[in-house]
Parts: sequence; structure tokens; C-alpha cells
Amino acid sequence: MKALVSIIMGSTSDLPVMEKAATLLNDFQIPFEMHALSAHRTPEAVEKFASQAASRGIKVIIAGAGMAAALPGVIAANTPLPVIGVPIAASLSGMDALLAIVQMPPGIPVATVAVNGAMNAAILAVEMLALSDAGLAARLAAYKEGLKDKITKADQALQEVSFPYKVND
Amino acid sequence: MKALVSIIMGSTSDLPVMEKAATLLNDFQIPFEMHALSAHRTPEAVEKFASQAASRGIKVIIAGAGMAAALPGVIAANTPLPVIGVPIAASLSGMDALLAIVQMPPGIPVATVAVNGAMNAAILAVEMLALSDAGLAARLAAYKEGLKDKITKADQALQEVSFPYKVND
Amino acid sequence: MKALVSIIMGSTSDLPVMEKAATLLNDFQIPFEMHALSAHRTPEAVEKFASQAASRGIKVIIAGAGMAAALPGVIAANTPLPVIGVPIAASLSGMDALLAIVQMPPGIPVATVAVNGAMNAAILAVEMLALSDAGLAARLAAYKEGLKDKITKADQALQEVSFPYKVND
Amino acid sequence: MKALVSIIMGSTSDLPVMEKAATLLNDFQIPFEMHALSAHRTPEAVEKFASQAASRGIKVIIAGAGMAAALPGVIAANTPLPVIGVPIAASLSGMDALLAIVQMPPGIPVATVAVNGAMNAAILAVEMLALSDAGLAARLAAYKEGLKDKITKADQALQEVSFPYKVND
Amino acid sequence: MKALVSIIMGSTSDLPVMEKAATLLNDFQIPFEMHALSAHRTPEAVEKFASQAASRGIKVIIAGAGMAAALPGVIAANTPLPVIGVPIAASLSGMDALLAIVQMPPGIPVATVAVNGAMNAAILAVEMLALSDAGLAARLAAYKEGLKDKITKADQALQEVSFPYKVND
Amino acid sequence: MKALVSIIMGSTSDLPVMEKAATLLNDFQIPFEMHALSAHRTPEAVEKFASQAASRGIKVIIAGAGMAAALPGVIAANTPLPVIGVPIAASLSGMDALLAIVQMPPGIPVATVAVNGAMNAAILAVEMLALSDAGLAARLAAYKEGLKDKITKADQALQEVSFPYKVND
Amino acid sequence: MKALVSIIMGSTSDLPVMEKAATLLNDFQIPFEMHALSAHRTPEAVEKFASQAASRGIKVIIAGAGMAAALPGVIAANTPLPVIGVPIAASLSGMDALLAIVQMPPGIPVATVAVNGAMNAAILAVEMLALSDAGLAARLAAYKEGLKDKITKADQALQEVSFPYKVND
Amino acid sequence: MKALVSIIMGSTSDLPVMEKAATLLNDFQIPFEMHALSAHRTPEAVEKFASQAASRGIKVIIAGAGMAAALPGVIAANTPLPVIGVPIAASLSGMDALLAIVQMPPGIPVATVAVNGAMNAAILAVEMLALSDAGLAARLAAYKEGLKDKITKADQALQEVSFPYKVND
Repeated sequence: MKALVSIIMGSTSDLPVMEKAATLLNDFQIPFEMHALSAHRTPEAVEKFASQAASRGIKVIIAGAGMAAALPGVIAANTPLPVIGVPIAASLSGMDALLAIVQMPPGIPVATVAVNGAMNAAILAVEMLALSDAGLAARLAAYKEGLKDKITKADQALQEVSFPYKVND
Repeated sequence: MKALVSIIMGSTSDLPVMEKAATLLNDFQIPFEMHALSAHRTPEAVEKFASQAASRGIKVIIAGAGMAAALPGVIAANTPLPVIGVPIAASLSGMDALLAIVQMPPGIPVATVAVNGAMNAAILAVEMLALSDAGLAARLAAYKEGLKDKITKADQALQEVSFPYKVND
Repeated sequence: MKALVSIIMGSTSDLPVMEKAATLLNDFQIPFEMHALSAHRTPEAVEKFASQAASRGIKVIIAGAGMAAALPGVIAANTPLPVIGVPIAASLSGMDALLAIVQMPPGIPVATVAVNGAMNAAILAVEMLALSDAGLAARLAAYKEGLKDKITKADQALQEVSFPYKVND
Repeated sequence: MKALVSIIMGSTSDLPVMEKAATLLNDFQIPFEMHALSAHRTPEAVEKFASQAASRGIKVIIAGAGMAAALPGVIAANTPLPVIGVPIAASLSGMDALLAIVQMPPGIPVATVAVNGAMNAAILAVEMLALSDAGLAARLAAYKEGLKDKITKADQALQEVSFPYKVND
Repeated sequence: MKALVSIIMGSTSDLPVMEKAATLLNDFQIPFEMHALSAHRTPEAVEKFASQAASRGIKVIIAGAGMAAALPGVIAANTPLPVIGVPIAASLSGMDALLAIVQMPPGIPVATVAVNGAMNAAILAVEMLALSDAGLAARLAAYKEGLKDKITKADQALQEVSFPYKVND
Repeated sequence: MKALVSIIMGSTSDLPVMEKAATLLNDFQIPFEMHALSAHRTPEAVEKFASQAASRGIKVIIAGAGMAAALPGVIAANTPLPVIGVPIAASLSGMDALLAIVQMPPGIPVATVAVNGAMNAAILAVEMLALSDAGLAARLAAYKEGLKDKITKADQALQEVSFPYKVND
Repeated sequence: MKALVSIIMGSTSDLPVMEKAATLLNDFQIPFEMHALSAHRTPEAVEKFASQAASRGIKVIIAGAGMAAALPGVIAANTPLPVIGVPIAASLSGMDALLAIVQMPPGIPVATVAVNGAMNAAILAVEMLALSDAGLAARLAAYKEGLKDKITKADQALQEVSFPYKVND
Repeated sequence: MKALVSIIMGSTSDLPVMEKAATLLNDFQIPFEMHALSAHRTPEAVEKFASQAASRGIKVIIAGAGMAAALPGVIAANTPLPVIGVPIAASLSGMDALLAIVQMPPGIPVATVAVNGAMNAAILAVEMLALSDAGLAARLAAYKEGLKDKITKADQALQEVSFPYKVND
């Protein structure tokens, strides 16, 4: 089994956010790897990882970082693969990380998701992989259909809320 | 009893905020309904709800949403009824939801209230309904008059606060 | 002809923004009035205007203000009518006016629209009036339908844009 | 004993912030009063209070408010007395209240202090009163001198902090 | 003629903003002085100015500054006189200067006005001086009354605006 | 020739920003289409477009929008394809559009790029398509390599800048 | 042992943040001192300290401050030594302190680090001292090398995280 | 002549901002070099430059960057030399670049100056170099003394401003 997606973070303290990406990829039965790398502490390792990822068979890279979050952009600088950036709310509500990830200069995009939005990063990776994997595309379609169930159940729960002037279905 | 106001939210986790709207409408004896809908998870259901609301007798729609809060705007896009948007503070102190709701493009307004301001959304709905309901207008006038009592009582409580150099009435 | 909507602003310098509201109401054949009032310079006049508006037959008030934009809230404090607030970008990109208008305390809502969004304020007023005016409701429905034409034309214009690898309909 | 300073707030929930102003005025032996008033709930009471304050002998008004904090500005609109505004952090970290208080339009200033800075509001009131009260000016000078003691003590405490490479005085 | 108010700025480039304070004081016939001082370039001169201002007969100090606007606070640190701070929009829309001026720590307030609000700073100074100058208080009352005229004229101008469905007084 | 990428915008006024995406796709010889759609004005057309895009052979959707930018998210809600969102700076420096696009709720990601970053959106689309197109991957690698030339030329230009104490290579 | 670095703060309440600077300097065996000084409460002491620091043998000054954080800038105004500023998050998430420290006017820089980034301030001081101290430069190089270990260990920890579809090294 | 300071930028479009650093270093007769490097377009060149700078005799690095400004941090990651970061206002008023530069994680500081503050970056470099260069320290002291002249001249210019009630020295 070879990893198709690489989940990168700068520290184990980012794991509570980033493991949501792992869980989703696992649910979709997509082989993935997880690594700790830092644009500021292990820059050579980042460059080595990024420049070799494509040849190792990785298709999509998910990178989470907080504060002056350079990691996603520096990975993107060293790979032709799509890089998904997850701003982590480590300071200033995550606004610093969001801007440091999304405001990439022309030529080197990072596909940015919401602050702490690691699960969505994984779904985005699935969407990319599903472009050339019909089976995965079917599982993705089923997953998206399933999102409606949560709303349907929430709607049912709301019908249980009782007020004299509340009209129920 | 047919609902005149529809309270819409994306999840039961929004209920602690949105039930203040329900309580106020109930106090005003205005029939209302509550539904869970999501612009991003159940878009067809949103469109169906919004495009049928007027013909079902709904007069005003209150929609609460957090983050990239598209729900109020998408409802407004599918109904001629006034739509009141409640930004919910789910991330970034609710500033993302506030901007995503209030900054609607020309042609499709959403009447936006304060972050987490569901009670005020309901009062706004009452104000709209009272335009053509004299009895409700009278109850609304009494309610607004009653707001003064809270301040009067606060003023009395402040007179109880004691300092040597404090002068009381 | 008696005015149904009152458009209030603090200065003639706000007219370039606020006249969009006038134009839209005029197009909908809704009688309206325009007045200059200031919560900070003519507070008694604001109170007098707001407390008498309903009895004069006004149904909806649109108030635009910039900076520490107290005008919409102070009007709302003195009337049971729905008040629509238009934040005007006179400083800090209008963020000061937006927060000063939308963040109203419990009990006294202001229906806030986008920064400089006076046209949408007028559409919101039309939506409220249309709740009890079937003819107006029909004109509103036609107007909303007409919004699609602008997009349809924009789509046609985009088909005129030419690139070797662009596929047209 | 007639009050020279009036401390105004919109609710007893603002008391934990605003009582710091009361304590400081009391320490300076300046007669003061405290009242609850609301620009949005009791606008006539605000106008009555503000327009009569000067003739009642009040010299300075301190007004605290949160959210769309119109109270200080509306008081300033109705009195020639200096009005000091205290933004209270009730939402959005108090940034909404700060902007709603400080960004007053030309003609009607509000002397704004830091978010939750009620003690400083009282010192500012003392500074104004001391302009024509030599005894108070002397107490103020002594107070300001005393501020240095706190730093001197902090400096002494820092000398107690021990590190092998730390050099003490 | 001895100056009662001192207008301080860091550079002649601040003059277009700060001269509005000079004009207003001049209109009120209040003797004032203007000086260039910098908390960062001439700190001793700032300290000398601030610590001697009271004994020279100055009653109120108005200080304008942009960027990391330390000038008003450092002046306040060296005088018992009230200091009014004017944030100047030299960068970041003046938000940096606003926060650097208004967020003073306990003990040393600066009475902050709007970004570029030098005229209001002068009015605030007049309000303080009028506390012990009945003639000035009368001129101030007349000035505030005169503010209404501008609104009255604006209202008249709005009646000249013509729309078929516009109702005029 | 069938379009692989769809570029969507709400108005021809967005064309100056969005045509950079078209130019880049054209340079990469990737067939694309351009359409005007609006989440708020033509919601049914958006839903129809999004739900049919995959079956029409579209692989990636690029959607640009300003203000309360719901378009990318609503498209994402109706398609399993990856959706790339371009925040357009139509108001508030584009911060409203950025937050309205990037802060998507769990389940429905939008791959967000910088404010006005349409060219990067197209590169991101190329990266996704190159995952299963070796020829395109080679052109992408060459493009990324070419980015270095611009820097190399800038470096040469900097060597032409002359100062007495400047050391050149 | 003479101090080479001076750590300045305004209050012992800043010690939990600023002691990280002390710990790092101590680990590098760099003699340092700690003092409490306030730009607003003890301005003469700040000026005296800053103007004498160089002649006392101090090489670098680290100053932490919150709110309207004038301390680092005022120290910089009185010394030719490099001054490192640490914004402390005492209000508004530290954004006020960050802007008040970093936005220094031309001529008087403050080397600003992250909000609450006192440890980095000390590393920056070490970097400056190491420019003329080969032994320290070697310890600094070893320290920076050691930063990689933390990432390496984090990477090993991530390999322990187990998912069925996770591929480990 | 060997360069002691390296001025790095990502593009010649940054030259109007960054040449102020060059001018100041030149005025101080400090040999410097200028290079274009990009963390995102030429990452290997950045790493090569940064890791070799110290051994080439460079003492301080000044790096300017806009948007998701990773350049200063990535240089700092690869050198033990002090790195000074200049946020360039290329978008969002430079707030994105400021946060992306200043909010560095523990271990890897960047000495950040004001948005577009390249001249101050150079002065900071001079301050660092002057720690071990007595001649430079003297020139720096003279320069700082000279800053006062500009204020003195501004003060003289202000005395030329004429108002009937203005008191001059």
C-alpha cells in the first residue's frame, strides 16, 4: 500500500486539528502518510520531502500550520502537486495563519480551507483524486449525499422543540 | 394555526442562539415554524423551502448561520419575502458570518442583525408584521415601553451602590 | 400622495449613496420623503421625527450614516416601525459605521444592509411593504425575475470573449 | 453635597467595569452620581439627563457602553459638558464599542478611553476638574507621583527573580 | 496674550490635519500655541514641554500623531493636564495610531478623538475650558446650536431633490 | 474540443480579474469555458450548472465572487468536482469575500486562493488536471521552472542599481 | 559579571511572558538584567535607563509591553542600541500592542517579534551578540540545529498514530 | 570591499520600497549587496544564499516581501545571522505581510519593522553592526542626534503659521 496523500504538520500539538484529515481519508480508504516538517526548523527536510513527493507516488499534499504559516507555501514552491493549506488557530484567532497561507504570490497557489478546517482539506483531496478514480468518485457522491442526513435529523430534532405558538410539520 | 415566521438554522448546535427568536415570537403569540436547512448541504431543500414559503403563508424568514454564512442570502435569492440574517459566532468571533451575511450584492438584501442577535431578529419580524396588524402593533408598542422598565430598575439598583462620595437621588 | 418610506441621512454629502434608495423607491412607484437629520447635531429633531413617523403614515424608515453611525439606532429607539440602516463608508472603509449600526443591543434592532448598500435598503423596504400590497408584491416578483436578465446578458458577453482554447456554447 | 461627575451606564451588567470609575472618584473625594440610561431604550431620559446636567452642577459626564455604543455620543449631543466614553467589551472584543464611541462626526466629540478603561475615564475627569481646583490639582499630582511606586516595587520584585546568569542591582 | 491650549504634532506633514484644531480655537478666541515635538526623535524636548506646560499656563494639550503614535501618551505621562490625542491616518487607515493612542494603561489616560478628528479635539478643549469660563460656555452653547443650522440647510437642500414619487414638505 | 475547466463569475465587471485565469489556461492549452452565474440572482441556473458540470466533462470549477461571496460555496454544494474560489476585492479590500469563501463548513470545501488571485486559481486547476495527464504535468513542471527566470532577471536588474557602497556580483 | 542584555517590562504581570527571554539568555550563559520601567508611569526612569544603557555595557535591550505599548519605542528613542519589542496580549488579542510597537516612524526602529514572543526576542539578541562572539555563534548554531530534533521527534510520534489506511515509514 | 549587509527582495517591483534601505546603508558607508530571491519561486536559491551568507562575511540580512511574505522567515531558517523583515504593502494594506513576517514560531525570530519601513530596517542593521564598530557607533549617534533637527525645523515652520489667537515663541 503506497500513500496517495501526505498530511504534514509542524508539531504534534497540531495533531488534534490535523487528525480530522486523517480520519476522513481513512474513511475513504485512501492510503496516506503523516509527517512532521517545519518550514522554519527543518527547511532542507521540507524541500527534500516536497521535491520527492510526486516521484514517491503522492498525489496531494495537505499541510497545516499556525502563526506565520509558511509551510504550505514552501512545500508548494518545491512540488508540482496540488497543496492544500490548513490555517491553524494558534494565535490571533488564526487570522495570521489564514493570511500567511492564502495570500500566495502569482505562480505558486495553495488551496486554502477554513481556519482549523482539516477535514475539509481531506475532502478536497478526495475530490481531486476522484477526478481519475471512478470508484472513489462514487464514494464521494455517496458521502456528499449523506451530508443531507445530518440536516434532515437536525430538522427532525427541531420539530421536537416545543412552544405554544410553534407550528410543526 | 399557520406559521407566519420561519426560523431557519443549519444545525441544532445553533439552537441555543436561535431559540431566543422562538421565545420572543412565542411571547408575541405569533405562529412560527423552525427548520434546519443548509445552503451547502441541502441546497435543493433550501431552494424548495424559500420558493414555496410565500405561498405557504410565511411572511418573514429568519435565518441564522455561522462561518461562510451563505444561508440567509441563498434563501433571499429564492423568495420575495424579507429575510432577516443572524450571524452566529462559530469562528473568528462571528466576523466571518457577519460579513458573509450583510455584504449582499445589489438586488438581494438580507436584513442583518448583530452577531448572535436572534432575539432582535424576531423583534424585527414583529415590526414588519405589525405594519398590517393593529393588535400586534399595540403589543409591540407595549413591549418597547417595557424596555424602559429594565433601565429604570437598573437605575434604582445603582442607587443602592454605596460610596462615601456618591450622591443618590 | 403620502410618503410610505422615509429616507434619512445626516448630510447632503451622503446623497450620492442614499439617492440610490430614492431611485429604486421611485421606480417602484412608492411615495417617499427625504430628510436630513443628525443623531448628534439635531437629536430633538430625530426624536420628534421618529416618534411621529408612524402616525404620519410612514411604514418603513431607511437611515444612512457614517463613522460612529448612531442615527439608525436612535431612530429605532423612538419608533415601532422597522428601521433599515445603511453604513456609509466615510472612514475606515465603513467598518466603523457597519459595527455601529448592526451591533444593536437586545430590544431595538436595526435591519442592516451592506456598506453603501442604499439600493438594497430600498428593496428591503419594498419587501416589507409588499407583505400587505399584492400589486407591489407582483412588481417585486417581476423585479427579482429581471435580475436574472443582467446575468444572462453578462453570460452572453462572456461568450464573446475569445481565446483559442475557449469553448463557447 | 452636589455631584460634580455623573457616571452613566446602560445596565447593571456594566457595573463591574464602571465601578472602577466610582472608586477612583471616591478616592479623590469628588462627589459623583451613578445612573442607568440607554440611548436605545430610554432616549427621552437620556436627552433629559444630558440637557439638564450642566444646570444641575454636573461638570463632567462619564458614559460606558458596549456593542453599538451610542450612549456617549447621544449624551454629548445634548450637553455642552465634556463627555468621556468608555467602550465596554460586550462583543467582538469591544472593537465595535470602541469604533462606535471614538469615531464621532465633526462638532460633537467624545473623549474616548481604552476598552473597559473606566478608571482612566475617572482620572481624565479629575484632570478636567483640577484645571480650576488647586487642591484637587495637588491630589492629582500626588496620585500621578504614586504611580511610580508601583513600578519601583515591580522593579524590586524582579530583582528577586533568580537565574545563574542574571545580574541584580 | 498667553496660550491656554498647546497643539503638538510630530511633523509639518501633520499640519493639514492639525490646523483644523487651530482654526477652531482661533474662532473661539482661545489663545493657543503650536509646536512640533516627537516622542521618538526629541524625547527630552517632549518631557521638558510636558512637565512645564502647566506652570506656563497651558490648560489643555492636543497632540496628533500617526503610526506607533506614542506622543500623546508620553506627554500625558509628564503632565497633570488633560491630554487630547488625535490619531492621524498615516498608515493602515489610521487604525495603528488609534489603538496606540486610545489603549492607554491604567493611571495615564489620553482623551482620544476620531482618526484625523483634530477639529473635535479642539471642541473638546473648549468644553474643558468652558467649565470655568462662563463667557466661553456661552460661545460654546451658541456653536453647538449652530450645528443644527447645517442640518436644517441640508434638509432644505434635500427638498430640492426631485423624483415623481418624492413627497416634499 | 470539450471544456475541462469552467470559469464562473457573477458579472462582466469581474472579467478584468477573472480573465487572468482564462489566459493561463489558454497558455496551457486546456479547453475551458466561461459563464456568468449568480448565487443570489440566478440560483436555479447555478444549481443546474453545478449539478451537470461533471457529466458534461468539466473536471475543475473556478468561481470568482466579491462581497458576500456565496457563489463558490453554492457551486461546491451541488457538485462532487473540486471548486476553486477567487475572492474579488469589490469592498472592504476583499476581506469580506475572502472570509465568505474560505470559511466553509465541514463537508463542503472550497479551495481558496488570494484576493484577486485568479491566475493562481488556474494554476491550481492545472495542478489537479496534471495528476492524470503526464503531458500536462511536464508543461506544468516547465512553467514552474520558468518562474525562476523572472527572479533571475530581477536579480540581474538589481545588479544594475548603483550606489558607491553597493557590492555587485 | 556585567549584564549584556537588559530585559524590561512594565509590570510583574508581564513576567510569565517575559521570563521566557530570561530562561533562554540564561541557557546561553549570557549575563542579563531585568527591570520594571514604564513609559507612562516612570518616563524619567525610562529615559535615564535608556540613555545610560550603552555606557553601562548593555548591548541589546528587550522590552515587552501591552496595550498602547510605547515602552520599546521610547527606549529606542533614547539609545543607539538595538531594541527588541515584545507585544504582550493584554487586550484585543495583542493586536494593539503589536501595531503600537512595530509601526515606528522613520529613524527609530524597534525590532518587533510575535505577540508574546519573548523567547524569540532573546534568540534575536543572541544572534546580534554572536556577530562578534565566535563562541556564542557556535552555541547558537548548535541551538538552531537542535530545533530540528523536536521536529524529528514529532515526526516519530506521528508514525505511532495508527489508522488502517495510514502508511508509515 | 565586501558586503556586510544583504538586502533581499522578491521582485524589482519592491525596489521603490527597498531602495530606502540601500540609501541609508550607503549614507553610513556600509558595504551592502542587493539580490532578488523568492521563497516560493527560487527556494533552493534562498536556501543556498541564506546558508552561505555568514561564511561570505554578511552580518545582517534585510528581507522585504509582500502578501504571504515567507521570504524573511525562510531565510532566517537557514542562517544564524539576524534577519530583519520588511512587510511590503502589496495587498490588504500590508497587514497580510506584517502578520506573515512577525508571527514567527519559537526558535526562529525575524526582527520586523513597520509596513514599508525599509529605511528603519537599515538603521536597525546599523545598530547591530555598531555593537562592534566604534566608528560606526559614532556615526549612528550623530545620525540619531540629527533626527532632532528635522523636528526643530518643523517647530520653526509651525511658528510661521499665523492665526490672530496664535501665540508664538
